Amino acid sequence: MDEKIAVVGLGNAGLPLAAVIADSGIEVTGVDINSERCDLINRGINPLKEEPGLDELIGKYGGRSFKATADIKNASSCNTFIVIVPLFIDRDYNPDFMILESAIKGIGSVLKPGDLVVLETTVPPGTTDNLARAWLEETSGMEASQFSLAYSPERIMTGYSISRFREFPKIVGGTDEESGKKAFAVYSRFVKSLNMVSSARVAEFIKVVEGCYRDANIALANELFKISDNLGIDFYEAREYANHQYCHIHLPSTGVGGHCIPVYPWFLIKEMERREKFDDARLLRTSRELNDEMIEFCAEKIMLNCLKIDKPLKDIAICISGLSYRRGVKEIHHSRNLALARLLVEKGLKVYAWDELLGKTGVENLGLRYLEPEKADLAFDTSGLKFGSSSKFAGKEKMSKTSEGPVCRC
Amino acid sequence: MDEKIAVVGLGNAGLPLAAVIADSGIEVTGVDINSERCDLINRGINPLKEEPGLDELIGKYGGRSFKATADIKNASSCNTFIVIVPLFIDRDYNPDFMILESAIKGIGSVLKPGDLVVLETTVPPGTTDNLARAWLEETSGMEASQFSLAYSPERIMTGYSISRFREFPKIVGGTDEESGKKAFAVYSRFVKSLNMVSSARVAEFIKVVEGCYRDANIALANELFKISDNLGIDFYEAREYANHQYCHIHLPSTGVGGHCIPVYPWFLIKEMERREKFDDARLLRTSRELNDEMIEFCAEKIMLNCLKIDKPLKDIAICISGLSYRRGVKEIHHSRNLALARLLVEKGLKVYAWDELLGKTGVENLGLRYLEPEKADLAFDTSGLKFGSSSKFAGKEKMSKTSEGPVCRC
Repeated sequence: MDEKIAVVGLGNAGLPLAAVIADSGIEVTGVDINSERCDLINRGINPLKEEPGLDELIGKYGGRSFKATADIKNASSCNTFIVIVPLFIDRDYNPDFMILESAIKGIGSVLKPGDLVVLETTVPPGTTDNLARAWLEETSGMEASQFSLAYSPERIMTGYSISRFREFPKIVGGTDEESGKKAFAVYSRFVKSLNMVSSARVAEFIKVVEGCYRDANIALANELFKISDNLGIDFYEAREYANHQYCHIHLPSTGVGGHCIPVYPWFLIKEMERREKFDDARLLRTSRELNDEMIEFCAEKIMLNCLKIDKPLKDIAICISGLSYRRGVKEIHHSRNLALARLLVEKGLKVYAWDELLGKTGVENLGLRYLEPEKADLAFDTSGLKFGSSSKFAGKEKMSKTSEGPVCRC
Repeated sequence: MDEKIAVVGLGNAGLPLAAVIADSGIEVTGVDINSERCDLINRGINPLKEEPGLDELIGKYGGRSFKATADIKNASSCNTFIVIVPLFIDRDYNPDFMILESAIKGIGSVLKPGDLVVLETTVPPGTTDNLARAWLEETSGMEASQFSLAYSPERIMTGYSISRFREFPKIVGGTDEESGKKAFAVYSRFVKSLNMVSSARVAEFIKVVEGCYRDANIALANELFKISDNLGIDFYEAREYANHQYCHIHLPSTGVGGHCIPVYPWFLIKEMERREKFDDARLLRTSRELNDEMIEFCAEKIMLNCLKIDKPLKDIAICISGLSYRRGVKEIHHSRNLALARLLVEKGLKVYAWDELLGKTGVENLGLRYLEPEKADLAFDTSGLKFGSSSKFAGKEKMSKTSEGPVCRC
């Protein structure tokens, strides 16, 4: 089969996906509104430096079997269109479909009878079936029966995207049986471990649920951390021995940042609100609030640590060390350490920040003062919530042993 | 060392422990207020039939190296006293220490200088250090420095107790360093995988935290079940593919029953209340409430299923099938199915119940009418929350694949 695949969206998720598809011998047209990024790719230069393995793939296929373009028209000879653009939430935590709508309507404008469209973006359950279908029908002028439509969530993690696309179990679900089968056949060509579920809606729900699991379990860890702190118990010691085959307490943190986990629970919370089932998402909501409010707890702990310093509080230089939402990722979206720094500024404390990836300019561009942690009177290092007071184990470096997949900033 | 160990409390947890200790070649005196149970044990008869492997051990050691008695005085030649009696919560969810106090004070009355006391009962963190120590000092007339005191939580599950005591990792923590070392040395003689933690308090916290993890994750499963039901998604299909090495969604249920998981979170919730940190245990409280309120959701689902039956609602015979809090365990403590049956009676529906272990008399003794599920118009079988309406996968028996350790009634 002379399949040609278009990947719409060449960001942190879409670019590794396009490269993995190209690496399986399929011709790929990548579409992204950022034409500078497209130029780089076509010259074989990887614009996403922090993704191991990507340099090699872009160098090998960029501008050859993987061509990037800012104009969807250049993808009109493709038979499969994969949508992998960001979906944000607005100030009221409702999904903002603007980018997704624009991408899908663009695809509709070049769609031919018999083509396949697959969404990879994490979306509220029902989005593929309802919104995506309607947008495609509107701009293609076709009925849904004339094209195929399915959903297959990306399950990547920045820094591990290539291996995640290649090896992690992937699922696919169609808006009808034929669409599901068609998507399954196409994905089988570049995904090793592929499962079909009964519908696009189920596949959408699965991805959102994974985020809810992480958010709720990080919230549980944070709550247990606060309780253990209050009881004078070293949380990390307790966690080490509490965890076994039937128990998996996560790591506590200043909260959960990034584009994914703090966003997905809202898809369900807001949907249940719209259905006037306010009570049916209260654990998800409590978890979300608890994680976002952890910065208040941390701020108080930082202030209490000032008791140990023989200086007026106003003169104590406090440094928040690490601003990106996760170590090694140059991204501050919903960063809770950034929120913590701003909260301390608001309280009138003498606050500085430091970040290995952002540097002095990056920190100052965020409106914060820059200082190396070693030069501060008090440095808050979030490689572990350690406030050095609770029990005899405090201060020991225990965090290194506990890496566990998509660990959030903590 | 000619160690003699007393096990105080020969219930579901204490009896298997005593048998396992005897099996390691140590002389055991079991103490229990139930003298009939003691007589049976001394005649080599196992009073706890549902525990596999126990018949053989009691038959072999009962009345020989494992003697049972209702009088703590008969244990006065022992050097180690292990307390493993129940701890309930009262109507306000506060721990009711009556039984524990009586057991520990009894031990104090026969305690000799140099003896070791170890609590196994799951207790609020701090209980061993504060209450147990004070009770022992009071009745022994000794200072705490004259005896050793430690904590080592049982991690059993009814039906798996023997193997749990023998093989599951166990922890021990002393109220001081010497007590910890001493308890570690004694337990090493009959426990394979033993770890020492820094204090009794940490060991107490670890056990409570495991229960909180289960309760919160079952609550999350229940909330996601309600949401998926609302969205027309088969929860069990989604769960099957959502679960992987970084995600472990539990099974939904009518709630969480028994003496353990529904009780332990209250130890932390109530302690935080006492400290006026009302907000610091809100996830635990939300989880507890959500699990207990699942019977309301189930009751509504049962009534909606009556729409399919061509009979007046008042004439529809509804059978709740399975009343014990977990399948295979003849125990109705905090059973949510029993609570569900009573809720339906209260609503005025024509409700019956059936239970394989309780039988007709057992069901009627609970104030419910007995009926075999096959004879009912509508049977609620809690081997899975299946309401047969949501999606194309409903009705398939998927629960059998998903056994995962201490699964609660569901």
